[in-house]
Amino acid sequence: MSVLVVGTIALDTVQTPFGEKKDILGGSGVYAATAASFFGPAAIVGVVGSDFPQEHLEYLKSRKINTESIQTMAGETFRWSGYYEYDMNQAHTKDTRLNVLLSFDPKLTAEQKKSDYVFLANLDPELQLKVLDQLEEPKLIAMDTMDFWINSKREALKKVISRVDIVLINDAEARQFMETPNLPVAAAKIIKLGAKAVIIKKGEHGALLFSEGVHFSAPSYPQEMLRDPTGAGDSFAGGFMGYLAKTDDRSEKNIRRAIIMGSVLASFNVEDFSLERMRRLQPSEISTRFNEFKKFSEFEILEVKI
Amino acid sequence: MSVLVVGTIALDTVQTPFGEKKDILGGSGVYAATAASFFGPAAIVGVVGSDFPQEHLEYLKSRKINTESIQTMAGETFRWSGYYEYDMNQAHTKDTRLNVLLSFDPKLTAEQKKSDYVFLANLDPELQLKVLDQLEEPKLIAMDTMDFWINSKREALKKVISRVDIVLINDAEARQFMETPNLPVAAAKIIKLGAKAVIIKKGEHGALLFSEGVHFSAPSYPQEMLRDPTGAGDSFAGGFMGYLAKTDDRSEKNIRRAIIMGSVLASFNVEDFSLERMRRLQPSEISTRFNEFKKFSEFEILEVKI
Repeated sequence: MSVLVVGTIALDTVQTPFGEKKDILGGSGVYAATAASFFGPAAIVGVVGSDFPQEHLEYLKSRKINTESIQTMAGETFRWSGYYEYDMNQAHTKDTRLNVLLSFDPKLTAEQKKSDYVFLANLDPELQLKVLDQLEEPKLIAMDTMDFWINSKREALKKVISRVDIVLINDAEARQFMETPNLPVAAAKIIKLGAKAVIIKKGEHGALLFSEGVHFSAPSYPQEMLRDPTGAGDSFAGGFMGYLAKTDDRSEKNIRRAIIMGSVLASFNVEDFSLERMRRLQPSEISTRFNEFKKFSEFEILEVKI
Repeated sequence: MSVLVVGTIALDTVQTPFGEKKDILGGSGVYAATAASFFGPAAIVGVVGSDFPQEHLEYLKSRKINTESIQTMAGETFRWSGYYEYDMNQAHTKDTRLNVLLSFDPKLTAEQKKSDYVFLANLDPELQLKVLDQLEEPKLIAMDTMDFWINSKREALKKVISRVDIVLINDAEARQFMETPNLPVAAAKIIKLGAKAVIIKKGEHGALLFSEGVHFSAPSYPQEMLRDPTGAGDSFAGGFMGYLAKTDDRSEKNIRRAIIMGSVLASFNVEDFSLERMRRLQPSEISTRFNEFKKFSEFEILEVKI
């Protein structure tokens, strides 16, 4: 099965304790589609400006990502500029220039409208709604968002949530959005908005799955090599969706595995700037780390009479 | 096997979003010994002032905790006063009065000196060293500490670490102590000081075990009921040590189980103020939640060719 990703295509300027990189390839759609492409076919819906380097489009194509719904518009590509301090858990935005995103009107091809696995990456919820309106009976829709949309387009965001299966959101944003410090409570409130399940991404602390009567706590990865956290959540989502589409199994058991696979992709992505680690990543490395996650988290129950 | 706990016995004044309680039973030694007592015999070494309510000593005895090494000195009992804000992850200290702790000189009985399982709960590292000097060939020594000692008695603390098997420390303190935001790096540095293993307690995010070639990420508990986080780390340690002593098995597999058991006890303790939840806690509840942790964290590896 193929994964359809709708999201941003960006030129990022990023500063971390490991260096500063200017106008590097980024964007929620790019990270997610690239991570998904390790598992099978992926397509990306997005927009770039006339300044967007052709080599980046070539890279996406080299990953067998369908780029026919990437629109090129006059003007500049979406740009994000930010930095991470010492602890690297929190991105600090210096500048966001929506540029061509401001007039973006996503159009799916006839084939893309029939997609079974759809990921609405972090993007204006009104654009996410426009994509939802074009879909015909997908098997699974997941979405992500960020504080910017929680603050500025709360109602549209709620509408999106009511129409998707799985909400991916980071811990700080879940707390902020649902106005509670308690993550299980925040998750329950998001589910009440109409989603079937919520996955809370906690960065270095792993990820949590909440659904009616279901809870799963995915282990954290002991990340010694962390150069640039940009795109961690998007590559998590891409790995998650890619694995689900590849296996075409939406059981809770398989969703748990997909969360681990998402964690694996994210753990690689943060090892270098932009998509650099993804460019070097080998399928065998993915399998090895997937097995490591099992070792990191397993324990046996031994009943002891107390 | 019995667990010997050395730590504080306190009268706490605690404010959380769920209320304020004045001069309630607390202290690292009390929480740890109480949690350990669910698994078998425990003893507590500590000091109280002449103002310490007899009923608290009776409570400890009712838990079959050996109190003969609790010294009663003229003066006031150690008092801690603090509050938790909205997110309850961080304790804010209003006032610490060491009182009788200032002249405390821990003395172990002949039997206690032969203890096999020893927990040096959060306490002045110089007092922890005095206890270490009295021990004869224990099977396992674990310790805990806090930012106050990291700042004020760094060298004594390093000496304690070099003489114990397992260091328990919370995430913020591990980062601060080892001057790195990276938890795996902080853990490696603590192990270099001479401990065999490090357990990093992450509150709502679970716990991590690091040792030479070993990593374990214990799941977080979806804690909806959280009234007072005071003593969470100490009850974690007590559950951990109590389970190890009960099973008398120091293999890595069993240490993983003991970490889960520590997480179980901590998750109950925070459901109410002081030791209130511990007073009501039934062994069957412990077993049930222990099994829940397994369900929260399990996933199966399914090899998928990518």
